[in-house]
Amino acid sequence: MKKLILAYSGGLDTSYCVKYFTADLGYEVHAVSVNTGGFSEDEIAKNKEKALALGATSYTNIDAVQTFYDTVVKYLIFGNVLKNNSYPLSVSAERIVQAIEIAKFAKAQNADAIAHGSTGAGNDQVRFDMTFQTLVPELEIITPIRDNTLSRKQEIDYLQSHGIEWSWEKAQYSINQGLWGTSVGGSETLTSHQTLPEEAYPSQLKNEGTETIKIGFTKGEPTSLNGVDDTPVAIIEKLQGIAKDYAIGRGMHVGDTIIGIKGRVGFEASAPLIILEAHRTLEKHTLSKWQLQHKENIALWYGTHLHEGLYLEPVMRDFEAFLQSSQSSVTGTVEIALHPYRFEIIGIQSDYDLMQSKVASYGEENQGWTASEAKGFIKIMSNQGKIIQAVQSSEF
Amino acid sequence: MKKLILAYSGGLDTSYCVKYFTADLGYEVHAVSVNTGGFSEDEIAKNKEKALALGATSYTNIDAVQTFYDTVVKYLIFGNVLKNNSYPLSVSAERIVQAIEIAKFAKAQNADAIAHGSTGAGNDQVRFDMTFQTLVPELEIITPIRDNTLSRKQEIDYLQSHGIEWSWEKAQYSINQGLWGTSVGGSETLTSHQTLPEEAYPSQLKNEGTETIKIGFTKGEPTSLNGVDDTPVAIIEKLQGIAKDYAIGRGMHVGDTIIGIKGRVGFEASAPLIILEAHRTLEKHTLSKWQLQHKENIALWYGTHLHEGLYLEPVMRDFEAFLQSSQSSVTGTVEIALHPYRFEIIGIQSDYDLMQSKVASYGEENQGWTASEAKGFIKIMSNQGKIIQAVQSSEF
Amino acid sequence: MKKLILAYSGGLDTSYCVKYFTADLGYEVHAVSVNTGGFSEDEIAKNKEKALALGATSYTNIDAVQTFYDTVVKYLIFGNVLKNNSYPLSVSAERIVQAIEIAKFAKAQNADAIAHGSTGAGNDQVRFDMTFQTLVPELEIITPIRDNTLSRKQEIDYLQSHGIEWSWEKAQYSINQGLWGTSVGGSETLTSHQTLPEEAYPSQLKNEGTETIKIGFTKGEPTSLNGVDDTPVAIIEKLQGIAKDYAIGRGMHVGDTIIGIKGRVGFEASAPLIILEAHRTLEKHTLSKWQLQHKENIALWYGTHLHEGLYLEPVMRDFEAFLQSSQSSVTGTVEIALHPYRFEIIGIQSDYDLMQSKVASYGEENQGWTASEAKGFIKIMSNQGKIIQAVQSSEF
Amino acid sequence: MKKLILAYSGGLDTSYCVKYFTADLGYEVHAVSVNTGGFSEDEIAKNKEKALALGATSYTNIDAVQTFYDTVVKYLIFGNVLKNNSYPLSVSAERIVQAIEIAKFAKAQNADAIAHGSTGAGNDQVRFDMTFQTLVPELEIITPIRDNTLSRKQEIDYLQSHGIEWSWEKAQYSINQGLWGTSVGGSETLTSHQTLPEEAYPSQLKNEGTETIKIGFTKGEPTSLNGVDDTPVAIIEKLQGIAKDYAIGRGMHVGDTIIGIKGRVGFEASAPLIILEAHRTLEKHTLSKWQLQHKENIALWYGTHLHEGLYLEPVMRDFEAFLQSSQSSVTGTVEIALHPYRFEIIGIQSDYDLMQSKVASYGEENQGWTASEAKGFIKIMSNQGKIIQAVQSSEF
Repeated sequence: MKKLILAYSGGLDTSYCVKYFTADLGYEVHAVSVNTGGFSEDEIAKNKEKALALGATSYTNIDAVQTFYDTVVKYLIFGNVLKNNSYPLSVSAERIVQAIEIAKFAKAQNADAIAHGSTGAGNDQVRFDMTFQTLVPELEIITPIRDNTLSRKQEIDYLQSHGIEWSWEKAQYSINQGLWGTSVGGSETLTSHQTLPEEAYPSQLKNEGTETIKIGFTKGEPTSLNGVDDTPVAIIEKLQGIAKDYAIGRGMHVGDTIIGIKGRVGFEASAPLIILEAHRTLEKHTLSKWQLQHKENIALWYGTHLHEGLYLEPVMRDFEAFLQSSQSSVTGTVEIALHPYRFEIIGIQSDYDLMQSKVASYGEENQGWTASEAKGFIKIMSNQGKIIQAVQSSEF
Repeated sequence: MKKLILAYSGGLDTSYCVKYFTADLGYEVHAVSVNTGGFSEDEIAKNKEKALALGATSYTNIDAVQTFYDTVVKYLIFGNVLKNNSYPLSVSAERIVQAIEIAKFAKAQNADAIAHGSTGAGNDQVRFDMTFQTLVPELEIITPIRDNTLSRKQEIDYLQSHGIEWSWEKAQYSINQGLWGTSVGGSETLTSHQTLPEEAYPSQLKNEGTETIKIGFTKGEPTSLNGVDDTPVAIIEKLQGIAKDYAIGRGMHVGDTIIGIKGRVGFEASAPLIILEAHRTLEKHTLSKWQLQHKENIALWYGTHLHEGLYLEPVMRDFEAFLQSSQSSVTGTVEIALHPYRFEIIGIQSDYDLMQSKVASYGEENQGWTASEAKGFIKIMSNQGKIIQAVQSSEF
Repeated sequence: MKKLILAYSGGLDTSYCVKYFTADLGYEVHAVSVNTGGFSEDEIAKNKEKALALGATSYTNIDAVQTFYDTVVKYLIFGNVLKNNSYPLSVSAERIVQAIEIAKFAKAQNADAIAHGSTGAGNDQVRFDMTFQTLVPELEIITPIRDNTLSRKQEIDYLQSHGIEWSWEKAQYSINQGLWGTSVGGSETLTSHQTLPEEAYPSQLKNEGTETIKIGFTKGEPTSLNGVDDTPVAIIEKLQGIAKDYAIGRGMHVGDTIIGIKGRVGFEASAPLIILEAHRTLEKHTLSKWQLQHKENIALWYGTHLHEGLYLEPVMRDFEAFLQSSQSSVTGTVEIALHPYRFEIIGIQSDYDLMQSKVASYGEENQGWTASEAKGFIKIMSNQGKIIQAVQSSEF
Repeated sequence: MKKLILAYSGGLDTSYCVKYFTADLGYEVHAVSVNTGGFSEDEIAKNKEKALALGATSYTNIDAVQTFYDTVVKYLIFGNVLKNNSYPLSVSAERIVQAIEIAKFAKAQNADAIAHGSTGAGNDQVRFDMTFQTLVPELEIITPIRDNTLSRKQEIDYLQSHGIEWSWEKAQYSINQGLWGTSVGGSETLTSHQTLPEEAYPSQLKNEGTETIKIGFTKGEPTSLNGVDDTPVAIIEKLQGIAKDYAIGRGMHVGDTIIGIKGRVGFEASAPLIILEAHRTLEKHTLSKWQLQHKENIALWYGTHLHEGLYLEPVMRDFEAFLQSSQSSVTGTVEIALHPYRFEIIGIQSDYDLMQSKVASYGEENQGWTASEAKGFIKIMSNQGKIIQAVQSSEF
């Protein structure tokens, strides 16, 4: 019997796939889920039970939270990456790591085929297919949901006809949760003019007060929270636990899908948004003018390529080398005030703070140079403008 | 008697200048202020009175609010420009327009010298000097505050010795107000770790409710507020009037001065921040993927050069041509909810909205292409990655 | 009978198409060729004769040389565009203009279908299809050469079976000639290590001497040759006539096709290479430092998008606005020496030359500023480096 | 007696300095030259003799050829850096390394002052001063040639008055030689319209034939010549020895000096130009599309910052990390034909050549995908253009 590895989420689409692959196509199905931060132990146990009940030969959950942080999230922090200035790329980033883990699993298992449950309408099919085509080009990719454009009803009917009588209620809002944020889709996100209602978000306002927290960074990575050292993954999770009760980090993202159409999605990402803004502020104090300038464009591209499924492009490794190098002095502590629905950066403390130098500092009294030196500086800075005005006489 | 044009603000530094230039240096002093949005009629009248009392031959206020919008603010909106992702460049932008207006005035008056009251410590000296050196290189530039590094006490003593017994109390927070935002300096902004207290901001929270507004844009410019057409300048001013009572638009900017040191400044810019975010959202719906990508880097540079006093660089005209061209379809209405200390974009409506096309739209059912076409797309998109993996065998 | 518009070149592939569309598919075929600089009157006449003999209802040649210059070549000159620093994008640029002209023709003729003879292996199919899909999405696109992966022999056999007994000798080197250069393919270009032999190039060395020419530019466009004013198109053609006898402008291009594989092609482009280098030199004298810096990246992208068939992307219009704006002072004359196989720029003369200013010029004696001003300039330029060294103590 | 370290070249300016510092200023002068490829053993011996005769306490030659390669030239090769598309940055790059070596020497010697002989007109003063200000801010910088704007005659008279009767004939062309090229200045380079005559160049055409050579690269560095392994420095030197007899590598550079005026200089750089073009060609075969695209802009900036004396800016280390990362597959051999005054790349051979993959290759027969897949690819690539055309109806 041919061996097939299925990217399994426990939802209707991939449940249909297990049954269809075993019953109709005659595959030996190995269901695999990759946890990048969204699954609880309980969900994993339920997934296993469901997969086996549907006919899967095995179910495996791969814990990839640390891998996700090490290979992607870390660089998103280094680059302060927010797609279109708003979205922390939560789902885009996870899918790639999930696809890579599944491809590696399939290779290790000597599988004959590999499958996912994405439709033909969105980005995920591209991220899965491109990763599979690149890493395991010898495997057949099977995608019945896309190929047969099945409706929910058709899938449920098929499962029922095979004796699976589970309830598959469609949630009003589709939620996709992970370490680096949760995306939320609903009828409003299909319009351009409506926003998601309060209740669509997974976390609700519980804390109406104000709280001050401190995040410590070491070479660009979050390494302490309120003075307690911890791993970056643990800090993200703890911070999320605190900040979500303030309903911080909600937003709407409108962007271009890889297939050329525009899409809109809501998201909740308290910890990512706070960490990114804290990190960015620390960088403003510790990086040079030119690092700040050039990092911006490089991070813009890093986000774009990641979003478009190009994580495996060699240039991404080159960008990561740049980003890693840029973090050598991004060490210090950032204080942040949390309020209902918003947060504000109080300030930073860092041994590498270029603003607090004895050489020169900003203020009424200029230190370190004379008026005459300043005038010389400006005079020579004006040379080219003066020449252009004289020679090409633009009018003002 | 030699004729001198002084950039006059009515503060201690430039008041000292009027007296010093007339009494000690023997100039015929023409005091000029340039209103880029911060002066009331009352202040202008007081400025005039003071300047003449100090010995100025004339006082002129140049109303440059519309010019400021037309030559700078418009492009900052087109580019969604926020320096270091936070600061709308309020002061940076104004100074350049003020310097240009004063240079033109000096030229028209056949002046012999031109003067400003900036110190040798900051950005403003560069913006004034560079503009003067470029546009009126034949005029001597006189800057006693910078040259003599005078203290407030020295200036007050000098004025008193000439019979000027006005009170010159130093405000706890220095405020610089204009059409495109107000900057706030204080003892906290000289540190890295403190933030400005509530009372430092010119506007205080007065409205604790919630309100929904609509901004209409035509080819990228704000042209209506809540359905009423108006000029962009009037819309900015009206919106500021509404939003400041929500204490919206406060922030702290840390950035590199032109002279190489880091500086920090607080700001309040309700209308600019709301307009920029509304404009950006409208662009996400109406611009192509590649316009959004490339605009970002161009706007980043536009802001950097403007901040550094390079407004007269010819490349700025080239960037403006790009930005202007990019706005041809940025027409539509944006709905925004105002809350205490924050705002959120509800959504947009536009005839040019690329998301609401009948050709194809995002969602469960894919329209306009088949599964097989999507698979062909991804397969060929994977070609290079597949070849690289085969030939250069990077490991994963 | 359904009406079909065929992009017709007179070669075997599109000749097959005429016969196949009329005889087998029952279309009323209108053959159209678009001249972007490669066709002589004689060839056009022959094309017509052949098309009609094969069964086409009509044959039309659209003269698009001026359009090609106005909409594409002009901007390639403004941007000094050489793909991968070597290739003037000769074919890439032409195909787009040809596709647009054919789409417009098809629309004007109320056609039912549109066809081209490209294979499924290269770039041209993408340029034709994308342009057709965008401009005439209502028309069916028919591409039998791609769909049926026909061999030359199969095509010839088919034509013979329909009584067409013409000879279709395959040239050893495939040549594609146009206003902006000629591409050359052969067995060597399929390897990575061989170069094209002397005889593969359409022009051979005839002039072993040396000659000096002068090209005049007006706002970036070539407007005179050796002192005689003419249209840019005429200047390109005349210059090509002169320079080809020196065997100037040969090269090999290795690049990425749109479909992700690498390809190699030889080319001969005397006039383009000379004009681009002359134009670039004139710009070095007449543009500001920042114009030169930023133009480079914008032109790089303009070339990449054009190469990849994205001419119709709105961002291309924005780039063109930038490029057009940047040319306002690119006026002057460039002197060039032609030698066998190479040329060298002698120098330029321009009223806008920023190097020949009386304000300041390069040389032993510094003019316009003092040693002390220069020292002040450098001191302040060093501020940030000095602070970084003190605070972050990088070792050297 | 105070200890002064002088950057000593053996020319008139720095000879004057030795005498002036010892005789008039009473310093203990330590003359230091830094060899970055231009000095022979003989010249070093002469320099020593002269320095001591003029009164220097010591003379030291620092051999920095390998350091120059390791810290700068290597990255110029990785980035294919040609300033303004023509100049390999020969002098710009050397000066920085010389300044760093002298600063380190001064620090190790506990010097009180540091000196150079640059004028106030050019770039070198900036490179020396900025490096000294950054690395040894505690040392006084002394620059009499700049400060006193001395003429050659004044310097010679002064030396004669101190008994130095050497002849100081001014060469018609000023030559600056180093590992990465030789710059040539003369009366022609002060004009915009003249070029240097044949005899101005240090190397003359001696070899009128043709020769084929092979350069081997390992991870981007030249590591063999004609099949013989050697160090990159040795390969550059050997290649220079071969290619200069073909008079290859001459050019004129027009560029912006750091102080805002335009300057022009001739250069001869056979080995650099050949190595850069060979390296670039190898990259076209071995790097991905996106690496080629993004490297271009990063290398452009690397060159600009290096030219402007910003080698010590932290962002340069980040760029170097990017460039180093990008070279992992740039390994292979490039064949080049040398002809009088020019060279041409024949081709490359590399195990990492992405063009010679079995997965897919360019040509008549498409491999690896079907016509239908290609059509799906293009259809979806056209999605956004089609939507834009439908919604925003740009006319064509």
